Amino acid sequence: KCELRCNLLPAKNGEEPTIQFLLEMVDILTNYVKKTFDRSTKVLDFHHPHQLLEGMEGFNLELSDQPESLEQILVDCRDTLKYGVRTGHPRFFNQLSSGLDIIGLAGEWLTSTANTNMFTYEIAPVFVLMEQLTLKKMREMIGWPDGEGDGLFSPGGAISNMYSVMIARYKYFPEVKTKGMSAAPRLVLFTSEHSHYSIKKAGAALGFGSENVILLSTDERGRVIPADLEAKIIDAKQKGYVPLFVNATAGSTVYGAFDPINEIADICEKYNLWLHVDYIKTYIKLCRANSVTWNPHKMMGVPLQCSAILVREKGIMAGCNSMCAGYLFQPDKQYDVTYDTGDKAIQCGRHVDIFKFWLMWKAKGTIGFEQHIDKCLDLSQYLYNKIKNREGYEMVFDGVPQHTNVCFWYIPPSLRGMPDGDERREKLHRVAPKIKAMMMESGTTMVGYQPQGNKVNFFRMVVSNPAATQSDIDFLIDEIERMGNDL
Amino acid sequence: KCELRCNLLPAKNGEEPTIQFLLEMVDILTNYVKKTFDRSTKVLDFHHPHQLLEGMEGFNLELSDQPESLEQILVDCRDTLKYGVRTGHPRFFNQLSSGLDIIGLAGEWLTSTANTNMFTYEIAPVFVLMEQLTLKKMREMIGWPDGEGDGLFSPGGAISNMYSVMIARYKYFPEVKTKGMSAAPRLVLFTSEHSHYSIKKAGAALGFGSENVILLSTDERGRVIPADLEAKIIDAKQKGYVPLFVNATAGSTVYGAFDPINEIADICEKYNLWLHVDYIKTYIKLCRANSVTWNPHKMMGVPLQCSAILVREKGIMAGCNSMCAGYLFQPDKQYDVTYDTGDKAIQCGRHVDIFKFWLMWKAKGTIGFEQHIDKCLDLSQYLYNKIKNREGYEMVFDGVPQHTNVCFWYIPPSLRGMPDGDERREKLHRVAPKIKAMMMESGTTMVGYQPQGNKVNFFRMVVSNPAATQSDIDFLIDEIERMGNDL
Repeated sequence: KCELRCNLLPAKNGEEPTIQFLLEMVDILTNYVKKTFDRSTKVLDFHHPHQLLEGMEGFNLELSDQPESLEQILVDCRDTLKYGVRTGHPRFFNQLSSGLDIIGLAGEWLTSTANTNMFTYEIAPVFVLMEQLTLKKMREMIGWPDGEGDGLFSPGGAISNMYSVMIARYKYFPEVKTKGMSAAPRLVLFTSEHSHYSIKKAGAALGFGSENVILLSTDERGRVIPADLEAKIIDAKQKGYVPLFVNATAGSTVYGAFDPINEIADICEKYNLWLHVDYIKTYIKLCRANSVTWNPHKMMGVPLQCSAILVREKGIMAGCNSMCAGYLFQPDKQYDVTYDTGDKAIQCGRHVDIFKFWLMWKAKGTIGFEQHIDKCLDLSQYLYNKIKNREGYEMVFDGVPQHTNVCFWYIPPSLRGMPDGDERREKLHRVAPKIKAMMMESGTTMVGYQPQGNKVNFFRMVVSNPAATQSDIDFLIDEIERMGNDL
Repeated sequence: KCELRCNLLPAKNGEEPTIQFLLEMVDILTNYVKKTFDRSTKVLDFHHPHQLLEGMEGFNLELSDQPESLEQILVDCRDTLKYGVRTGHPRFFNQLSSGLDIIGLAGEWLTSTANTNMFTYEIAPVFVLMEQLTLKKMREMIGWPDGEGDGLFSPGGAISNMYSVMIARYKYFPEVKTKGMSAAPRLVLFTSEHSHYSIKKAGAALGFGSENVILLSTDERGRVIPADLEAKIIDAKQKGYVPLFVNATAGSTVYGAFDPINEIADICEKYNLWLHVDYIKTYIKLCRANSVTWNPHKMMGVPLQCSAILVREKGIMAGCNSMCAGYLFQPDKQYDVTYDTGDKAIQCGRHVDIFKFWLMWKAKGTIGFEQHIDKCLDLSQYLYNKIKNREGYEMVFDGVPQHTNVCFWYIPPSLRGMPDGDERREKLHRVAPKIKAMMMESGTTMVGYQPQGNKVNFFRMVVSNPAATQSDIDFLIDEIERMGNDL
């Protein structure tokens, strides 16, 4: 059984079988890519966990002591794709990360072929420089003078947000690094009740405690109310706690809301707090932020994972995180070791997330990203206009969306005449999950839903997929009505 | 300029140009793969940061507002590889992560084509199940009954180690999650002075403080001295601190040392401490560990990133990390939502790190990994036997290596007669960096060096590259002697 596999490189004369194997794999992958963009294929072929675990038509997930043949490996790869979800399909709207950018894909193939690690210039010279230049460009775009500052790509927005909290703590209470949280007073973080849960997770992980992450009230559009922030800061101070950090969201997860950053910045200045902005790429300037999380793997359509933490103050990341491990970051190398990035990260090995993004930027230019985002905003506007007065729809909040999020209830005919009250609420709460389940079973489209506060389950449509068109929006609405009509 | 790029999918009739572009990219990549295994090519073509930043023969790293042509994109890709480091080259020994596994590479290409996220079964059904089955298999292999327990793949060993500290804290002081570190007494962590610096980083990040990470003394082979652990536990208790966690290393970074895990486990049991093991894949059982970090991207040759945190107690990861974000982890989905993994992670989006590993396991079988590790151990034994009595070499510690690490000084002829003392030490300290710089300038091979404690810079050879043979070890030694002879 080993025969074929053992012919691959580094085996002697392994070139030909290796290239042949890789090309067979590429054939599988390019077929998948073609089908992904083909509206006549399904978004997914849904199976329950127990069905896949039992083994579908010879697709056996179990690992064994003995090797499989290369033919079987290729079959396994086909099956893996077959039973997965086509996140690049024009009708996949389930998450903000959607779409399959061909340049980004090619970039990721190169990245895995180069298979290196961002921790030193020594083994990733080109990627380290690309990261540095790209971070500078991003800092320029958010309006920091000359793009000065610090930053890193990290494995996702939650970790980027965690960095921001760590760095804020280090800025105000540097002794916590060596002495722990007992060296600081009781510190309090503030974030919107609509913000991403990662701020709360960071508070729990880093030793603040989730109760010391104070949730801020929002207006009907999901934007933080600045007066509430100020009142809660004053309240915390009166209790003897020390307000440290405010997270403002520019494009919230569910509503796509933009917190009023300038007013929040005024308050942060007044009370000397760190201002972090969790940022969806748009066109706003964030000059007053101390740190920013920017996830190119969301609105910009870069393949997963691609998230950056940007920090206004240069050098503070190394101050916060360095442990000066001599076996990795030797000071006596022949090149300028300030290019080594490892000691300012909480990771040791760090995946190369920059290249696909850099390559997409080269291929599209800044204007290409802007066009893409404009197109997504137009599409969500189209959806909004289509359903805002349509029979059977209720918008979760009034007015045009601030971003690509459109939040709405579909009201089946059976509920349309029903007066508001517990019964209607309970029934309506079950509508979106039922429609979603039918969508997944039929595999025609996918869209997210969730409750929020006292609002029962509603659909949250987000557009970031460059393959989506108005006809796909129309299709989604048709599907919702077809599936929901008899509920 | 946009013309060609704009023909790619999702453009109308974009199939053909897309496939053509991807195949041109694959041609670049397969050529790179061939050259990587070809000993007549260099490991790297070294340039200083300022040289690459100034632009090498048209290779311009700067990003601009306008798009580049697809032809230029392909040229950029060639240049990116040209000025990078071939970490799969048979003579690349710089890090434990080395080698380019063809199956793993193909797996990573598929992963990026599928471009999904591990947080829910909903959008990654196959990958989520593969992760679950693989984690179970790993837990079985380290000897946990029926492979029961918990775990996740995380973005690298440092984050896996950070998880272990968080989970230990949650086990003993669950109220820290909500109330912060002030709800616990002063907690102390223990790890070897030879252990990976990530334990200290975790201590700093999570609010323990790096001073509360107590370093344990080691014997001449770099193994923790159990009596020292016990003495330091007693000392901490006498000061009123609370010992919480011990990290034992099975295969340390520099020496490849194995801490005496059973004796450490006895002490952990006696004092009721959490035992974490930072583990290089070998054949030892870790039945008594509460948690284990296992990095398949090291000894097992899986492409970066691939690291797992394994936890003995089922359900504790969710207890530690869950925040129950309604918009992602809806309880009213149509499938069994216990398969959703997101709420037990500190990440939100999580890259699919499992597939390449799963595919390699399928292709090699468990025995294939074992053969690979045996081969690496044989090669380091070969190196050790070759240099232990050779003129001009001194071993950093006596006796055969416990793992694939071989640590040694090369003594140039000019230093061979010199008596031990500051002058010789200072001169010897500069030898390895000089030889390393010459290696990089000439691009023929790469090996790591570092000081350790009071030992001046020495070479640390690690073998994990499946392409390496005895002739490459011979080559390395020849190069060291050729370059070091006149120092």
